[in-house]
Amino acid sequence: MGVVPFLPLAEVSGEANVGAEEAPLILAGVLLSLIVIYLASKVGGELCARINLPSVLGELIGGVAVGVSALHLLMFPEAGAVETAPSLLVSLLGTTTGAGPETAIAVSQTYSEVISVLAELGVVILLFEIGLESDLQELIRVGPQAAIVAIIGVVVPFLLGTLGLIYLFDMTAIPAIFAGAALTATSIGITAKVLAELQQLSSEEGQIIIGAAVLDDVLGIIVLAVVASLAKTGEVEISNIVYLVISSVVFLVGSIVLGRFLSPYFVALVDKLQTRGDLLLSSLIFVFFLSYVATAIHLEAILGAFTAGLVLAETDKHKELEEQVIPLADMFVPIFFVCVGAKTDVSVLNPLVPENREGLVIAAFLVIVAIIGKVITGFTILGQPEINRLAIGVGMIPRGEVGLVFAGVGSASGALSRPLEAAIIVMVILTTFVAPPMLRVVFQSPGTSEPVLSVEVATAEDVSIEVATAEDIDI
Amino acid sequence: MGVVPFLPLAEVSGEANVGAEEAPLILAGVLLSLIVIYLASKVGGELCARINLPSVLGELIGGVAVGVSALHLLMFPEAGAVETAPSLLVSLLGTTTGAGPETAIAVSQTYSEVISVLAELGVVILLFEIGLESDLQELIRVGPQAAIVAIIGVVVPFLLGTLGLIYLFDMTAIPAIFAGAALTATSIGITAKVLAELQQLSSEEGQIIIGAAVLDDVLGIIVLAVVASLAKTGEVEISNIVYLVISSVVFLVGSIVLGRFLSPYFVALVDKLQTRGDLLLSSLIFVFFLSYVATAIHLEAILGAFTAGLVLAETDKHKELEEQVIPLADMFVPIFFVCVGAKTDVSVLNPLVPENREGLVIAAFLVIVAIIGKVITGFTILGQPEINRLAIGVGMIPRGEVGLVFAGVGSASGALSRPLEAAIIVMVILTTFVAPPMLRVVFQSPGTSEPVLSVEVATAEDVSIEVATAEDIDI
Repeated sequence: MGVVPFLPLAEVSGEANVGAEEAPLILAGVLLSLIVIYLASKVGGELCARINLPSVLGELIGGVAVGVSALHLLMFPEAGAVETAPSLLVSLLGTTTGAGPETAIAVSQTYSEVISVLAELGVVILLFEIGLESDLQELIRVGPQAAIVAIIGVVVPFLLGTLGLIYLFDMTAIPAIFAGAALTATSIGITAKVLAELQQLSSEEGQIIIGAAVLDDVLGIIVLAVVASLAKTGEVEISNIVYLVISSVVFLVGSIVLGRFLSPYFVALVDKLQTRGDLLLSSLIFVFFLSYVATAIHLEAILGAFTAGLVLAETDKHKELEEQVIPLADMFVPIFFVCVGAKTDVSVLNPLVPENREGLVIAAFLVIVAIIGKVITGFTILGQPEINRLAIGVGMIPRGEVGLVFAGVGSASGALSRPLEAAIIVMVILTTFVAPPMLRVVFQSPGTSEPVLSVEVATAEDVSIEVATAEDIDI
Repeated sequence: MGVVPFLPLAEVSGEANVGAEEAPLILAGVLLSLIVIYLASKVGGELCARINLPSVLGELIGGVAVGVSALHLLMFPEAGAVETAPSLLVSLLGTTTGAGPETAIAVSQTYSEVISVLAELGVVILLFEIGLESDLQELIRVGPQAAIVAIIGVVVPFLLGTLGLIYLFDMTAIPAIFAGAALTATSIGITAKVLAELQQLSSEEGQIIIGAAVLDDVLGIIVLAVVASLAKTGEVEISNIVYLVISSVVFLVGSIVLGRFLSPYFVALVDKLQTRGDLLLSSLIFVFFLSYVATAIHLEAILGAFTAGLVLAETDKHKELEEQVIPLADMFVPIFFVCVGAKTDVSVLNPLVPENREGLVIAAFLVIVAIIGKVITGFTILGQPEINRLAIGVGMIPRGEVGLVFAGVGSASGALSRPLEAAIIVMVILTTFVAPPMLRVVFQSPGTSEPVLSVEVATAEDVSIEVATAEDIDI
């Protein structure tokens, strides 16, 4: 039903609807990919949870295992690895459905595209969920600190990296600037997921990290625009930069102000709806609308999703909405993390391959700069002796998929030598995979209250209130 | 993050990763399509709910409003309407993102494909949910009745339609057989959704309809294979038919038997998992696996999803799972119904267009056969005076997207004349749009207990149990 069985149709259909007989095969490819993704995410996540590592790290490693680096099950045509053997999944698809390898290869581009979009929807939903669990008042309160963390975390790694490559490694300016730019990124997705797992999202450190990571995302877009323009024309297009800065500020401030103004009407409207999914679908319309606007003005969809979450968190529907978003996040978010892992080619880490060695030396330098450049950001916060400065800095370390985008843009521009490109990828891999366990360690070190403890304190207070109630009854 | 802003990238990237700069535009197209879909579904659904019609009818009509028939917002390249003007949504996308019309048109194929897959995942999740809410014991008990309903509902409309077209309308055999075949379909999606809205899924009538609709789906695949082979070679490939029959039986019986045998291990495994989404993701792996197997052996993905739901409904996790599937269904299912509406070209219904008239006369005949041929099926059930026979027959009426598939295959084969193709589409539209309100009416007529009443009785019993507990305390 709904779908045409491809055996008879392939025999019948003319050229008029060439896509029709492929439709069930595309669906089959998507289903098979999702099975692989969920298996990788669960096996990786559970193994990591058992050795006390964040499960998101397991999802990334699971992705690496099924991706371009190892099993070749989950491959993406745009991953850069041009003309390797067709993925195992494509062969499996061609064999099990009887469609044959050529047809399977023909649809692989399309279903990979679908999986990529599902992964992007995954990070959109993740950031919506993070926004829902964030506290706008708290974010505004820590805003100046977050801004300092974000700016220092962009400027210091960029300068250290670029100047180091020029003076220590005798590189020319353009490639050094590209590598420096890649050092500025922060993967808000990975950091936010780890914070959520550690139940540190609503802590002061958590909110500073989230705020800084959001601002870093905006800064990253601007840095990328500058570097890309520099690599192409040799000069910086000021008008473009000004446009990006203004549109970011207008979008973030405007959508929050407008959203807070309109949210009572939103709640009133949802209360009037009678059909199933009233709250969830109305919220998704809002989330997707802000995500679309953010994309349309050349920002990121996730910025819109995060802002939508922040606005809806302030309504009295937020508890109900949070509960309904959990299954959506459970379904979509692993697709994102597994795909990030699957797209990462870790073979550049192998020191036994001679051509990797030059890259690994540069990589060692980049990794040190990447970690130092972000760790110091926490120590720029003045006053507040009780705050966990180390945790804030560590939270900014993972470059994740943002770093891969910089590497991809650099590679496409032709500005990067092969060793430098490999070095950037190694830096991205190590910062991404090392940060989640580090974050767990630093949040358990002294300097911040443990989340479990604070919950227990709250419970003790609840109990004392109950006692008071019992006394009232005695009277 | 994760996504490359297309402005700078479009300037920089070489031909190596041509897809990369389109990625944000594809996501933007998907987001915009989802916004349109959800708005259409909510506006249509709420309006229908207010005039006491099933909300799924509103979602279909909402789809028609935004689709190929009216607003041209949601268009699908494979819908057959070749080379019309680009959809409004494509223009909107090109304008608001500044990417320009050419780029927007270039990505429209891809994001439409993504939306089509999301719609198919929607009906997969719907049938999984229906399976979860079904009772396997009850389905097996009503199995023989459901089988009779399904077979009569295939044979009678096929014979009446084919013979009528040959003898009353002087048609040749092949086109008449195609039209007759299109009359055999039943849209399990639409029927199941309406039954769920009427809270009649678990009634005896509901279970007979669901069982018959599932079998009808299997029969439909076989009929389509026969007709397609007949249209192409002029003869029927017996081996193909035998293969389809055997694989259907083996799949349905095999997966239920094997699933029931393995489900205790599944529950034990889920209990051992520690990370978020343990139950939901494990279940989705199972659902997608059976859906994939069903697709691979040239059945339908939804048969696998329904079977997976049946198996998991028997575990003690089913309540928890049902709750988690609700938000997924709320998010995905409307995409399916709105897309069915959007793909339906209702302009063939306009009697003012002269070339529609011949088709409308044939259509009138087909609609009568379509309704009579299914309504009589309920009256083939012997004994059981209390059963609502009319409701069962009416439940089998909507042809929905299955009928559109037959029309599409016929059109592609060149076997259908333009008036006959239009007549089939008119028949599909009318049966699809008329059945939901009819179903609501016949379920409220005498012969079946109203669902609201039975719920109230259950509540009254709960109250009396509470009273008993209070007495225990007194002792």
